[in-house]
Amino acid sequence: MPVEGFPLSVRAPIASVEINVDVLQRIEQALAAALELGIAEDGPPQLGQAVRHAVMTPGSRARPRLVLAVAAACGDDAPEVADAAAASLELLHCASLVHDDMPVFDDADTRRGQPTVHRLFPEHGEQLALLTGDGLIVLAFENLAWNTRRYPERLGPLTLIISRAVGVGHGIVAGQAWECETGIDLTQYHREKTAALFSAATQSGAAAAGRNPAPWRTLGENLGLAYQVADDLRDVAGDAADIGKPTGQDATHERPSAVRELGVDGALARLHELLNGAIESIPECPGRDELAAMAQAEMDRLLPEGLLRGA
Amino acid sequence: MPVEGFPLSVRAPIASVEINVDVLQRIEQALAAALELGIAEDGPPQLGQAVRHAVMTPGSRARPRLVLAVAAACGDDAPEVADAAAASLELLHCASLVHDDMPVFDDADTRRGQPTVHRLFPEHGEQLALLTGDGLIVLAFENLAWNTRRYPERLGPLTLIISRAVGVGHGIVAGQAWECETGIDLTQYHREKTAALFSAATQSGAAAAGRNPAPWRTLGENLGLAYQVADDLRDVAGDAADIGKPTGQDATHERPSAVRELGVDGALARLHELLNGAIESIPECPGRDELAAMAQAEMDRLLPEGLLRGA
Repeated sequence: MPVEGFPLSVRAPIASVEINVDVLQRIEQALAAALELGIAEDGPPQLGQAVRHAVMTPGSRARPRLVLAVAAACGDDAPEVADAAAASLELLHCASLVHDDMPVFDDADTRRGQPTVHRLFPEHGEQLALLTGDGLIVLAFENLAWNTRRYPERLGPLTLIISRAVGVGHGIVAGQAWECETGIDLTQYHREKTAALFSAATQSGAAAAGRNPAPWRTLGENLGLAYQVADDLRDVAGDAADIGKPTGQDATHERPSAVRELGVDGALARLHELLNGAIESIPECPGRDELAAMAQAEMDRLLPEGLLRGA
Repeated sequence: MPVEGFPLSVRAPIASVEINVDVLQRIEQALAAALELGIAEDGPPQLGQAVRHAVMTPGSRARPRLVLAVAAACGDDAPEVADAAAASLELLHCASLVHDDMPVFDDADTRRGQPTVHRLFPEHGEQLALLTGDGLIVLAFENLAWNTRRYPERLGPLTLIISRAVGVGHGIVAGQAWECETGIDLTQYHREKTAALFSAATQSGAAAAGRNPAPWRTLGENLGLAYQVADDLRDVAGDAADIGKPTGQDATHERPSAVRELGVDGALARLHELLNGAIESIPECPGRDELAAMAQAEMDRLLPEGLLRGA
């Protein structure tokens, strides 16, 4: 069944959309450069190891890919700034994963198919995980400041976009803190815990290229909400080995989840709706079709085999 | 005995140096404004409470006072920027206290005479403490970006100074991580864990006023090292009720300490040496004498009754 507002003629070529290798290389280089900037050769060795492990364990890099896709659509006139925004968002995402995995939250042993940071060390693992998350948050902002030296007027807007996406107001930290409350609003929870960083990705892609970030907000926010729904679906329908982390965690931890609230069919319908809204919101620009295709391909990649494709 | 290079004629009036009430008010207002910027009315209520508790529990505000003192000595042409730098440094200091107090590190029940953040809540205290620290780090950078809107060229230098003072290279996070290593260099440990933020205080005071921060580095670094030695002395010779936190913690946690390494007399001699170096390093400026007096008064304030004054 074609998704409403997303005709087959656009959807057809999507299966062949490959993640652009150059983009991935650019992201890994930007991350490596950020680590180089932050980690001192004569610094505490285990911390350096922990920080590298948290960042360089292969991940989807969904957020930095979105930054670079939007930057490209906006002309990408300052690639060093776009690279920095992409890397900084991924550093913040990694920081949140390291802290979320700690015993105080999820007590997860593996992440991305590798040991979590606090499980990596025979001693002081939790201490190093706590410090790794802290250090990655700091490095995200240092990296932005360092790489905007030639474009100082872009640092303020980028820092505000990105800090708000992770902060105590409506960012990741707020989203995570809803887990400590009772009677929460599921949409606000997901908007903050996941969508905020995607929204920051699209907005900072535009801001990095010197454009107005506002029109790019809905694309990122809807993709982020869809991403969270897909994650909830994977948690009930996915395979742990396939997705590189344990499944069934939402029920185990009694976490809010779209599947728990809407059922599998309801969650799939919500995902379609969000994806359509995302694609429709893309501002007119030369790379509009590529962005739409990328958005659809992301969802295909994320859902457990057959769940969306077969729908 | 007069401290070498610091004659009695300068030292005499110091007992009457009071902490400037206007400065303290300016700092509290800047902190309140930062919290206002970061905390959302419709955000998770316990997180908001935790963040406010971490920041607004009365503290010495030594670092922001140093920022404002140096900014004043440099002309303070952009008070909103100096205020923001002062508040952001204090937010980062508070973040490090919240995380250090958690069971994974010091497992402290009280701080500044109040319950630590993780002990403030009957449930989810550790989760909220972890998120509070994370959120305060983020807010420090958001606050800088927000308040440099009229001086965008000052944001980059300030962000770099401040992020490096807390980061994984040679900042607080690195300093704390040395506690997970064996065979550490005590000076490097203290330089990173404490002095880095003091050094950032003096440098960012200058940078906030549009001046070259480099000549201000030694003042802050030496004061920070002296501050740490004073803290170690308080830990063995102070009174828990007096200083608002438990004493004897360095021995309990087998932490590196100047007193453990040098003895009380050796630690006092080191403190004098650092303070002299700090005062001698102050660049020629209209407020030089006030700064020197402030530096001496800080040490008098910090040391357990009679330890320095009686020396």
